[in-house]
Amino acid sequence: MACGPQAEDSRRKNENRLVKKFADMTVAELLAALASPDPTPGGGTAAAIVAAMGTSLLLMVTGLAKSRTNTDEEKAMLTSARAALDPIAAQLTRLADADTVAFDGVMAAYRLPKATDEEKAARTARIQEALRGATVVPLETLRACAGAIAHGGTVAEHGNRSASSDVGVAIGVLKAAAEGAAANVRINLTSLKDESFRVATETETAQLLDAVTSRAAAAMKAAS
Amino acid sequence: MACGPQAEDSRRKNENRLVKKFADMTVAELLAALASPDPTPGGGTAAAIVAAMGTSLLLMVTGLAKSRTNTDEEKAMLTSARAALDPIAAQLTRLADADTVAFDGVMAAYRLPKATDEEKAARTARIQEALRGATVVPLETLRACAGAIAHGGTVAEHGNRSASSDVGVAIGVLKAAAEGAAANVRINLTSLKDESFRVATETETAQLLDAVTSRAAAAMKAAS
Repeated sequence: MACGPQAEDSRRKNENRLVKKFADMTVAELLAALASPDPTPGGGTAAAIVAAMGTSLLLMVTGLAKSRTNTDEEKAMLTSARAALDPIAAQLTRLADADTVAFDGVMAAYRLPKATDEEKAARTARIQEALRGATVVPLETLRACAGAIAHGGTVAEHGNRSASSDVGVAIGVLKAAAEGAAANVRINLTSLKDESFRVATETETAQLLDAVTSRAAAAMKAAS
Repeated sequence: MACGPQAEDSRRKNENRLVKKFADMTVAELLAALASPDPTPGGGTAAAIVAAMGTSLLLMVTGLAKSRTNTDEEKAMLTSARAALDPIAAQLTRLADADTVAFDGVMAAYRLPKATDEEKAARTARIQEALRGATVVPLETLRACAGAIAHGGTVAEHGNRSASSDVGVAIGVLKAAAEGAAANVRINLTSLKDESFRVATETETAQLLDAVTSRAAAAMKAAS
């Protein structure tokens, strides 16, 4: 194996680049990738794509010709929700890729040599850095889910009633994706040594999950 | 518009055929299709694909080199779960297509002419037939989710602990998909006139949801 900083940089570059973005994979390819025993894509990527699907269903409802009561005020609210949801769907698609890249980075760090004290220190630092990345990505997914569910409340309340089961599916899968993202944040957090980051991240995760739970319940009620 | 039984048959055939199977769409195309204001694909199709993703994540865990305690007995249990989950993932992918076809059928039936009493009677019969189809498909999805979660319990208990957050995501999204499928069963059931079918389907739906809730809770506990 080639050594030295240059070879190392080249290896990292390859490890941190996806062969194919998930958006460009067919659904069959995505399912095969998830089912393969390779560690990535895993739950973090799946959660982001599921959340993008839920957000897309909400977008569908905002685009229907008729709203719940068909007032101009209501239509303006749905247009505003649509403007907020559109970039969230795009962001979640990018987070699906970012999650796999981040987790590949963690595994690459664990594979670094640890023969000398110097190597051990470098490896530990790289692992910590990579784990932080693999924590921040699902945290972003969780934030995006919470945002989508918040705007989903508007869609649930003012969207065409004929699409109420679509809204229900959307909110349900977004909540499950949020919980899955939170589980991925927490599992990486346990190995992180930076206590202030750990405490701040756990606090935000718990707050976001609380918001997700209450907003999802309210949206489900409004949709039904 | 061409009339008569032949033209009608040809129209139905076109309406009941997908332009492109969801498995062959890219993830970006799937998201765009879900986000478009067209009535299909909707929540039923999204639920089936989300469930296929969850099932694929469970398959991933059954394929890891190491199981929880690495005994031969445990590996045999995971191999057996894998054999059961594999066809469920394939079935859910087909159900994603079937849901869109079934719902397109309902809309086609509602578009039938209703100028004469004869036309009205034919249209009503066709609507009932189509609604039944649009009820049976998400019911199949719900059954498949319940099956995947049942085998997911084995994966949660005996799968490699390093994949516990993947199992958590899988179970969570499968439960959300099951609940979404049930909502789609119920919304179509309300318009069905065949009372014995309605009662039998509601009974099975409620039983499956109960099983999903308890099995998912047990699997989540075993995975954590």
